[in-house]
Amino acid sequence: MAGSIFGKNFTVTTFGESHGAAIGAVIDGCPSGMHLSEEDIQKYLDRRKPGQSEFTTKRNEADKVEILSGVFEGRTEGTPIALLIRNNDQHSRDYSDLKNKFRPGHADYGFFEKYGLRDYRGGGRSSGRETAARVAAGSVALKMLDEFGIEVHAYTRAIGPVEISSVDFDECGMNSLYMPDHDAFQKASEYLKECIKNKDSAGGVIECIATGVPAGLGDPVFDKLDARLAYAIMSIGAVKGFEIGDGCRAALSKGSENNDAFFMENGRVHKKTNHSGGILGGISDGSDIILRAYVKPTPSIAQEQSTVTDSGDDTTIEIKGRHDPVIVPRAVVVVECMTGLVLADALLSNQSAKIENITL
Amino acid sequence: MAGSIFGKNFTVTTFGESHGAAIGAVIDGCPSGMHLSEEDIQKYLDRRKPGQSEFTTKRNEADKVEILSGVFEGRTEGTPIALLIRNNDQHSRDYSDLKNKFRPGHADYGFFEKYGLRDYRGGGRSSGRETAARVAAGSVALKMLDEFGIEVHAYTRAIGPVEISSVDFDECGMNSLYMPDHDAFQKASEYLKECIKNKDSAGGVIECIATGVPAGLGDPVFDKLDARLAYAIMSIGAVKGFEIGDGCRAALSKGSENNDAFFMENGRVHKKTNHSGGILGGISDGSDIILRAYVKPTPSIAQEQSTVTDSGDDTTIEIKGRHDPVIVPRAVVVVECMTGLVLADALLSNQSAKIENITL
Amino acid sequence: MAGSIFGKNFTVTTFGESHGAAIGAVIDGCPSGMHLSEEDIQKYLDRRKPGQSEFTTKRNEADKVEILSGVFEGRTEGTPIALLIRNNDQHSRDYSDLKNKFRPGHADYGFFEKYGLRDYRGGGRSSGRETAARVAAGSVALKMLDEFGIEVHAYTRAIGPVEISSVDFDECGMNSLYMPDHDAFQKASEYLKECIKNKDSAGGVIECIATGVPAGLGDPVFDKLDARLAYAIMSIGAVKGFEIGDGCRAALSKGSENNDAFFMENGRVHKKTNHSGGILGGISDGSDIILRAYVKPTPSIAQEQSTVTDSGDDTTIEIKGRHDPVIVPRAVVVVECMTGLVLADALLSNQSAKIENITL
Amino acid sequence: MAGSIFGKNFTVTTFGESHGAAIGAVIDGCPSGMHLSEEDIQKYLDRRKPGQSEFTTKRNEADKVEILSGVFEGRTEGTPIALLIRNNDQHSRDYSDLKNKFRPGHADYGFFEKYGLRDYRGGGRSSGRETAARVAAGSVALKMLDEFGIEVHAYTRAIGPVEISSVDFDECGMNSLYMPDHDAFQKASEYLKECIKNKDSAGGVIECIATGVPAGLGDPVFDKLDARLAYAIMSIGAVKGFEIGDGCRAALSKGSENNDAFFMENGRVHKKTNHSGGILGGISDGSDIILRAYVKPTPSIAQEQSTVTDSGDDTTIEIKGRHDPVIVPRAVVVVECMTGLVLADALLSNQSAKIENITL
Repeated sequence: MAGSIFGKNFTVTTFGESHGAAIGAVIDGCPSGMHLSEEDIQKYLDRRKPGQSEFTTKRNEADKVEILSGVFEGRTEGTPIALLIRNNDQHSRDYSDLKNKFRPGHADYGFFEKYGLRDYRGGGRSSGRETAARVAAGSVALKMLDEFGIEVHAYTRAIGPVEISSVDFDECGMNSLYMPDHDAFQKASEYLKECIKNKDSAGGVIECIATGVPAGLGDPVFDKLDARLAYAIMSIGAVKGFEIGDGCRAALSKGSENNDAFFMENGRVHKKTNHSGGILGGISDGSDIILRAYVKPTPSIAQEQSTVTDSGDDTTIEIKGRHDPVIVPRAVVVVECMTGLVLADALLSNQSAKIENITL
Repeated sequence: MAGSIFGKNFTVTTFGESHGAAIGAVIDGCPSGMHLSEEDIQKYLDRRKPGQSEFTTKRNEADKVEILSGVFEGRTEGTPIALLIRNNDQHSRDYSDLKNKFRPGHADYGFFEKYGLRDYRGGGRSSGRETAARVAAGSVALKMLDEFGIEVHAYTRAIGPVEISSVDFDECGMNSLYMPDHDAFQKASEYLKECIKNKDSAGGVIECIATGVPAGLGDPVFDKLDARLAYAIMSIGAVKGFEIGDGCRAALSKGSENNDAFFMENGRVHKKTNHSGGILGGISDGSDIILRAYVKPTPSIAQEQSTVTDSGDDTTIEIKGRHDPVIVPRAVVVVECMTGLVLADALLSNQSAKIENITL
Repeated sequence: MAGSIFGKNFTVTTFGESHGAAIGAVIDGCPSGMHLSEEDIQKYLDRRKPGQSEFTTKRNEADKVEILSGVFEGRTEGTPIALLIRNNDQHSRDYSDLKNKFRPGHADYGFFEKYGLRDYRGGGRSSGRETAARVAAGSVALKMLDEFGIEVHAYTRAIGPVEISSVDFDECGMNSLYMPDHDAFQKASEYLKECIKNKDSAGGVIECIATGVPAGLGDPVFDKLDARLAYAIMSIGAVKGFEIGDGCRAALSKGSENNDAFFMENGRVHKKTNHSGGILGGISDGSDIILRAYVKPTPSIAQEQSTVTDSGDDTTIEIKGRHDPVIVPRAVVVVECMTGLVLADALLSNQSAKIENITL
Repeated sequence: MAGSIFGKNFTVTTFGESHGAAIGAVIDGCPSGMHLSEEDIQKYLDRRKPGQSEFTTKRNEADKVEILSGVFEGRTEGTPIALLIRNNDQHSRDYSDLKNKFRPGHADYGFFEKYGLRDYRGGGRSSGRETAARVAAGSVALKMLDEFGIEVHAYTRAIGPVEISSVDFDECGMNSLYMPDHDAFQKASEYLKECIKNKDSAGGVIECIATGVPAGLGDPVFDKLDARLAYAIMSIGAVKGFEIGDGCRAALSKGSENNDAFFMENGRVHKKTNHSGGILGGISDGSDIILRAYVKPTPSIAQEQSTVTDSGDDTTIEIKGRHDPVIVPRAVVVVECMTGLVLADALLSNQSAKIENITL
């Protein structure tokens, strides 16, 4: 397969370029009988929609989703669910001057070497816009997980050097950076205004927590649940680092510190701590799954940069157009959705783990 | 698939439990006509072989590989290459006392919840021993890459808090911690001796560099080259964090700092810096690929720990047996091999990217 | 995956129900740089379009295809090619009386048992209408094959007991049954008129020939080229038998008769006969590939039939609606397209067969 | 993948050449908790073992299977089950004279064109010997199906022109041709003796019946259950035709004849007839699944045949060695096992079809 199909039993195929006719996704493997409406999907799409604050691109896309198939009388049929999002606002002229130049920090050069041609309008297939299709598909996975009491919530943990010091989920929805800490949000806003003033951009950190995940999801070797999550999260453009639980810090600790002691409570196995981030040996251990995505600063900046042309000449470039000074806030929902796709797939795959669970 | 098959065009299926009859791997998709001998594979297996220093388990395994198929008159046939490694030294008695207890920091509990039973001898399928099969298969991938001038080298970047300050590849092979910095090696040795004395264990960091990778490998969306690498590296037991290029630090920098400027030299595109770690937008950019794996401390420690039994009673556990106080040195070659598998698969998959490259 | 994704390197995901908003396909893996327009696809769709003769359903569908992605300035980008076909003429009322009855010869009952619900309008996902998506995707595969001199042509070999006695490709396009023999066409027409008069339906045989296929496509074990073709052709609704080369008759012959002798001509290997149908041991042998699909009579007939309801009561059914008395003529292009998908996939997969053919 | 991996959730990877060190299979995805012993597998392997009658090759192989992994204390662990069969009797000298000649009716030429080299000893990977690995893996699938009351039985329906006229399963095991009709067996024996006398070979037909299959297995579009069965059966060397239910004859019948009427009995849906062969629209309908494989005559015959060398010269060939005058009897168990693999995979994949069946 050529890299646009995700998952094994809950599979998603996405398509679409930034400035083509449309983008979308086809889900193959969603169980039948689940209630699903366009509103269920739209509310997730609206969270990543551009043009919602001073810190996101002014590009104006309605991002209205249409369910083309797989749903009958309000319920999933077990057949492919095709989701379509038309591209409306295509300022191709914004990009014509970039036609022959490779933008630093972008896929342009590698893409051109791979395919010999490229849709230079907004990055084409490599545009962050493709994540809208992930969100559309992921929202269906999240709906399915919700039926089993599994919830996934992500938020902005840091913008550049400004990190949160507390987590108040109510706060998240109330600020444009999706930060669960109001003080941090205000400091981060100042930091971003400075970036914009300097024609520069910022990165940040997204944290995601999945609750209600039963012990036993994931596989022991290649398809470890955390390996699948790493694959899913690192496949989001601009993510350069991934952590599960204590993540990188675990390398500094000792076994006696890092091990989570087990104990019984109300007839259930619990852990005194959760350094593991809810996954041990690739299999969920019943605790909350905690992961972090480290996002690089938006590569599109208005400063002059040195680069080359596709005919091999040195040149310089100044990226005008409409770009987010930081993509973290809009990527929060993408992290939630990719996490949902991995968990949904693992849950379905797990149905055949034990002979005693197989039903005719 | 159930998680023991890796790759799309260069596929590897591994099998085997720590204390079963054997472990091994079947490669399906290796091109025909490549010279391959058991020695080519053995030299990689010998690097992860236990019992080689005071810092690795005393378990004594010859880990001799046998090529069962796929090679004829010294060359690959294009058919599946089956690699077999017999388990010799199986001290099952070491584990009988752990039969009903879940070891903290291990997969035991989740595995039991998933499958309803488990081979408690040395972790069974979840044992680090399964990585020998990865190394056997990965060495074939590395041999193939070498034919195209692509080389992959990994080393120990840190043991606990002790980090290297220079990289001398010659030094690596000469010390038991596979550290490219002799001073760091000596400090790390002291640190580990202290851990052992305290019945404790340490973690660390492995860094891996791939040179000679052409621009254009990897796919723009889900199968980004760095996403596939994250999946491969995070699937190695005990890895809790993954970075490509600047990794997590990228979240702190600004676009003007993080972007790598392009320039021409000798008719080739180069980058002034390599913050990207050789991959932009999921596609290789022609620079060295640089990744890091953050490894948690060995969970098996001799200290008494609180845990529970598979019948739901609180208890304590002291893990005797033979365990590495740190797994990093032996995992270095595993990281090399998993990186090799990803690059080999990406190279084969890339053969059909352009219509002009397709040959009858 | 849940059965709507086809292929390994040239993959197709289809979606859509007979009376939903739309049907379509997403191709992932088509090489970049190939010229492609909606006209290239439309001309194949027009061949299966309903309402073109007295022998096909009167359902009126424009079946206009829209390319949503993957094509830029007239050439494929190497990214997913999404193809959309809106459903226009949806006479749902035609089906309301079948809402709770399982149509004999149709998937209704099994589908209901599998999913617990079903879109009863025209068979929903199980409608022959889904083949339009196959044709849209297959036409792209055929275009790609054509660039390498590989051509695929199918025709009606038999309608019920009326079999062709000669093959004149020019004749095919000139008659509504797509038969390459005018006399046979006339006899078949009489036979079908009789069927219609008796509220009955007919089956038939489709033969397909692929020319220009190089020796070496396909794999030796599970993914034999003929096994993949059988999978592709048998996945077309109503196909109950598949043959390659001599097919079933081979069981009656002797080795001395069935073996095709090799000989050299103009420095190329040739075969004196082609009993093998162009494939030996699962790998193409350089001769024409010849396969046949045996199609059952249309199950939707106006005669009264005994059946049951989804609440478990015996009942009878008379299927009104608009149905083809024979689906063979419209299925001819579907067989061509599915054959094209298999060959295109095999050609791409074959690019990494030999180490000497791998290019950076 | 390169064609030696079969299945989606119950996957099998096979390996091995006819005259290499060993052949074998790795099953990934077999549920945990199923009782499994080497005897369970051996009894199937013994049925295809060579050297058991005057009508099979004299090659003497013990074909003893060893379970290398995946079974602990007599039960499956849910981890990969590796099965190893050593090659003992390797008369390579029998083949040295065929080193540079392509055998008519064999894969030799296509294989050489594909890979540029080949193991000429007994066909290497293309040898019928690879089916032993299928039988080893398939027997595990059949054991799993048996736990759910699903049984698969195949037998020889015809040898050349000699067809059975009755089916007595007890008779099957009692004659060397695995024919369920003693009279037919005797006639077939005479026919085969004549073939041997004339240095010729025969083909035949294998019929397979699966009972106890619930309605609802299989998918509506590409992964129709009959399409998967066709793929599995056509992937067995020498099979040139495949039928489900009435198969090719269905093309001659009318809808009123071919449709199977539904009726209720004891609260269950039944069919008055079974022209469909247990599958409608790609989904099992609860009736017995009936399929047929048409096998060509053994291509290895002692008569002189015209062929070419791998250096492009015309030549003649007489195939000595030890060859079955007919492969049908030994292929019967292979058909059973491949059918088992498809049904086991479909059963596991079906576990996630309905939301109401998903369990945490």
